[in-house]
Amino acid sequence: MSDHSKLPVAPVGAHEPPYYVAVFTSVRTQDQSGYSETDARMEELVKDVPGFLGMDHARTPGGLSITVGYFRDADSLTEWRRNAEHRAAQKRGRAEWYESYTLHVAKVERSHGFTREQAPQGTTAG
Amino acid sequence: MSDHSKLPVAPVGAHEPPYYVAVFTSVRTQDQSGYSETDARMEELVKDVPGFLGMDHARTPGGLSITVGYFRDADSLTEWRRNAEHRAAQKRGRAEWYESYTLHVAKVERSHGFTREQAPQGTTAG
Repeated sequence: MSDHSKLPVAPVGAHEPPYYVAVFTSVRTQDQSGYSETDARMEELVKDVPGFLGMDHARTPGGLSITVGYFRDADSLTEWRRNAEHRAAQKRGRAEWYESYTLHVAKVERSHGFTREQAPQGTTAG
Repeated sequence: MSDHSKLPVAPVGAHEPPYYVAVFTSVRTQDQSGYSETDARMEELVKDVPGFLGMDHARTPGGLSITVGYFRDADSLTEWRRNAEHRAAQKRGRAEWYESYTLHVAKVERSHGFTREQAPQGTTAG
């Protein structure tokens, strides 16, 4: 991993619909011991899931964290949900790291992207 | 608005599926003049859209911004997309404020929430 791995130059781009997003929004507790190691491990693990398309993350200091995972289809997301190490991390998260969270799992119907260097590009389905 | 309006104590909760999410991920340019006024105006405007359920926002300093808007149905989202003032703001965003962005519009199939103060609660459809 490069030193810039934590500073994305661009968000994950638009894929051809349909695909899935898992939107995880959370507020953390004061005690974050062990969180960053587990988070790094999860980021590594999810890359091995067939159909994983990418992940975006943002966190307002002292406020909300949002992580969005992109998956090719429902099966791909199910595989990730059932991963034993992932489940253990979720359990620990509820016990220690999260004050509150919401997970929204949704099927993308349309998407488009824009980058300053090139013309807007879009894909639509449905 | 209270002084705490920028510091949510909890993310937007799980609603009964189906509902829609608009996931907007972006990296900003250096020049953000006029952005915060427009952003505040959009936050105010979207609340008038029938079926608007809420909005989550997080921003990593120097990195990615993620805004997630929640809507009861596709019509509600279409009304927001067609709002003239919103369209003008988007156009200005492409011209001035955004280095790159992606918009994913998706239909939520399942969701659940957790808060430390109470037992986990969930809703599922499909």
